[in-house]
Amino acid sequence: MKNFVSVHDVSNIAQLVGIALEYKANPYSGNSLGKGKRIGCLFLNPSMRTRLSTQIAAQNLGMEAIVFNVGQDGWTLEFEEGAIMNGSTVEHVKDAAPIFGKYFDILAIRTFPTLQNRDDDYSEQYINQVIRYAGIPVISLESATLHPLQSFTDIITVQEQLRLHNVVSKPKIVLSWAPHIKPLPQCVANSFSQWVNAWGKADFVITHPEEYELDEQYTSGATITHNQDEALENADFVYVKNWSTYHDYGKIKSVDPSWMLTNEKMKVTNQAKVMHCLPVRRNIELSDEILDGPNSIITQQAGNRVWAAQTVLSEILKTIS
Amino acid sequence: MKNFVSVHDVSNIAQLVGIALEYKANPYSGNSLGKGKRIGCLFLNPSMRTRLSTQIAAQNLGMEAIVFNVGQDGWTLEFEEGAIMNGSTVEHVKDAAPIFGKYFDILAIRTFPTLQNRDDDYSEQYINQVIRYAGIPVISLESATLHPLQSFTDIITVQEQLRLHNVVSKPKIVLSWAPHIKPLPQCVANSFSQWVNAWGKADFVITHPEEYELDEQYTSGATITHNQDEALENADFVYVKNWSTYHDYGKIKSVDPSWMLTNEKMKVTNQAKVMHCLPVRRNIELSDEILDGPNSIITQQAGNRVWAAQTVLSEILKTIS
Amino acid sequence: MKNFVSVHDVSNIAQLVGIALEYKANPYSGNSLGKGKRIGCLFLNPSMRTRLSTQIAAQNLGMEAIVFNVGQDGWTLEFEEGAIMNGSTVEHVKDAAPIFGKYFDILAIRTFPTLQNRDDDYSEQYINQVIRYAGIPVISLESATLHPLQSFTDIITVQEQLRLHNVVSKPKIVLSWAPHIKPLPQCVANSFSQWVNAWGKADFVITHPEEYELDEQYTSGATITHNQDEALENADFVYVKNWSTYHDYGKIKSVDPSWMLTNEKMKVTNQAKVMHCLPVRRNIELSDEILDGPNSIITQQAGNRVWAAQTVLSEILKTIS
Repeated sequence: MKNFVSVHDVSNIAQLVGIALEYKANPYSGNSLGKGKRIGCLFLNPSMRTRLSTQIAAQNLGMEAIVFNVGQDGWTLEFEEGAIMNGSTVEHVKDAAPIFGKYFDILAIRTFPTLQNRDDDYSEQYINQVIRYAGIPVISLESATLHPLQSFTDIITVQEQLRLHNVVSKPKIVLSWAPHIKPLPQCVANSFSQWVNAWGKADFVITHPEEYELDEQYTSGATITHNQDEALENADFVYVKNWSTYHDYGKIKSVDPSWMLTNEKMKVTNQAKVMHCLPVRRNIELSDEILDGPNSIITQQAGNRVWAAQTVLSEILKTIS
Repeated sequence: MKNFVSVHDVSNIAQLVGIALEYKANPYSGNSLGKGKRIGCLFLNPSMRTRLSTQIAAQNLGMEAIVFNVGQDGWTLEFEEGAIMNGSTVEHVKDAAPIFGKYFDILAIRTFPTLQNRDDDYSEQYINQVIRYAGIPVISLESATLHPLQSFTDIITVQEQLRLHNVVSKPKIVLSWAPHIKPLPQCVANSFSQWVNAWGKADFVITHPEEYELDEQYTSGATITHNQDEALENADFVYVKNWSTYHDYGKIKSVDPSWMLTNEKMKVTNQAKVMHCLPVRRNIELSDEILDGPNSIITQQAGNRVWAAQTVLSEILKTIS
Repeated sequence: MKNFVSVHDVSNIAQLVGIALEYKANPYSGNSLGKGKRIGCLFLNPSMRTRLSTQIAAQNLGMEAIVFNVGQDGWTLEFEEGAIMNGSTVEHVKDAAPIFGKYFDILAIRTFPTLQNRDDDYSEQYINQVIRYAGIPVISLESATLHPLQSFTDIITVQEQLRLHNVVSKPKIVLSWAPHIKPLPQCVANSFSQWVNAWGKADFVITHPEEYELDEQYTSGATITHNQDEALENADFVYVKNWSTYHDYGKIKSVDPSWMLTNEKMKVTNQAKVMHCLPVRRNIELSDEILDGPNSIITQQAGNRVWAAQTVLSEILKTIS
């Protein structure tokens, strides 16, 4: 594995899931893989699980991890080619990235979308320029349109549940849009769709209000419906997530609270497990009764972030040792 | 030791002080105790000594320490049960804490009081919810009403001085209120009172202006007087600290500058050593002449923070290894 | 080496450069020097290269590094002797520095100038007080008037280029002022001048617009001219940097864009290598064509920050082991 920015960087998802579950069973089994190697974790945006799990994964592999809050600890970056830098940005990615490439063996970076201009965001210019100029392997800690470490974790978590309950038949997975008070990126929804489709071992349904269609390059292959109740029927897993609109870009069109999952709504499912990437706004996105109930697996899911990160790091380390 | 949030988590203070002074003599004597263990240090508020000494203590024990500035690096937490999260908080402690419990072996957390509502602050709902939901040992790095690592340090420092000067008689310790320009928590004063009383090896006097009475659950057993000069007579240790009012909660009622210690005032003491938890506002809380004089032991006191933290960490590690 | 705050702390620059280039060839050759030693890296101002390279250097030497953002993670410091602290500063350097001295073996600190009062800035009261009260070796990560780790790096980089191209004759080095939209410190220019002069192995020319004269204590020995074209003739190295005015202190007097280097201007040089300490504002300080062209060595230069820091750390470690 050279970089890890989308599912396209993975040749065999099932195999990667296997490695992750082995790390979960034996966290320190790869603790010499990272000896003498250093990862730089750059955050242009806030992060909790991603920040912590990536550091822990690196430590488990014997790597040194250095965390840097770009723009808070250091300088605001410029990404525009040919920019005349007489504004608020202090350093160009063309100058900063090659230096990260000198200081680190692997670079991990979080860069959120602006949600102002869809073409800019979907060009993934930020992370692509980092890759272009750093000259070392780059791991996305969530970019403008995708969140691959989260999605890899999600597949691990589903697979783990299937093993735990000895399920051999194809599970039904539903991605269900949820209300939110702020316009959020489409990253998690795009990325989850991309990974579930590439994994290919589930019946995949996406449900959301009208006007919340996602980019088809990620959802193609899934069944899409505006009827949440219908979508939930016989579901084995319900992945809850808000996102802002894609077509009329970055907006909130509906905050219909009836889209929030409740125990009543879940009755039609196959006692579905409920997933969410967190952070979750309680009683807006998801009700207390679900989150505090027996079918929520969000804590296990978040815990698995460590093994996803550790697997990706170890796969990259194997190529640079 | 399971958690460390107040003196009630300690069965034998004198024994614990002994361990701390051994660590001071041999900092690395426990450096295999923490191998393969990880502490998460979460700060909802600023910190210098606590932050640094906890990291150092963990390193001395061979632990990995990860520091996380909640709300600055990550998301603002919600602590209200049943909250409808349509405001500024992004993640509920019920969702965050269990994940800290998955990522770390020990959790250390700083959560200041709001000083708005006494019942809320004194219910210690923040740290209690973290304990309830994290499922791993929790260390207070100062909570709404107590600062146990500071108070343990203070007892260590007093004991060290007594040994140094071969004092066998009971020392007189005075907690003396000092002026300040801002309303500060009662944590350090509460906690110091609680520990000195539980330690039981000193004559303990508290002096403050009227209206600054502390909560009796902590001070009961001490002599309390509004006459500072009388309190200082024959004192062996004077612990200087400001706090805001407890009864009419969180206010500044007096800033009478005559409460600031000077060499003149100290003449009636038994050449008392002066202590302060720091940070101290010079020439408001304490005069330059005292701080720069021979009887100030605040640097040694702050240095001892490391050994207090190291002792607490090692006691907890012994129960989870 | 006891402290590292200016070139005066170095007895033999050429020897030190040699050590740095050995570390570059063998990064881990000193990895037992720092065992059981701890460095505190304190930032009162933002930093990227300095922050990262110092941590990496410490790790390469087996030291533990703790980074602390003063005023952001902790409390705002007071530096005024005798201050009555009833304002925004929370802790005096006289109280904080001795504690850093207890917690760490080496202290590294960044403290920018205010650019308000030249006498204050040039007295270097901040870092001098830290040295005075910390009682342990202090490394400047850039102070009010100097940036010695940068300048040491710059000499390493020049020497490396000379070796690479088998140059035996004295190179011509030009320090060329560049436009900027904000008033910047004189640190890098002062320090570069001080080091090139002390190194003594170059023809050194400084060029800047009228009114941008630097402090003669640093520039004395260099040729100074307001004619940039003349200065550039036959230059082997052009070091580009903006600084604000020294005499009428801390101001911007000219932003004449013609001072920005272009390929056209560089034609009169001896295919000079272009250096800059970064961050650089593209197309204001330096043109894209230079930065993206074959003669820019700024990435290598920034990379060398690690070896400069590692050399300084190891020289200090040798005196305290």
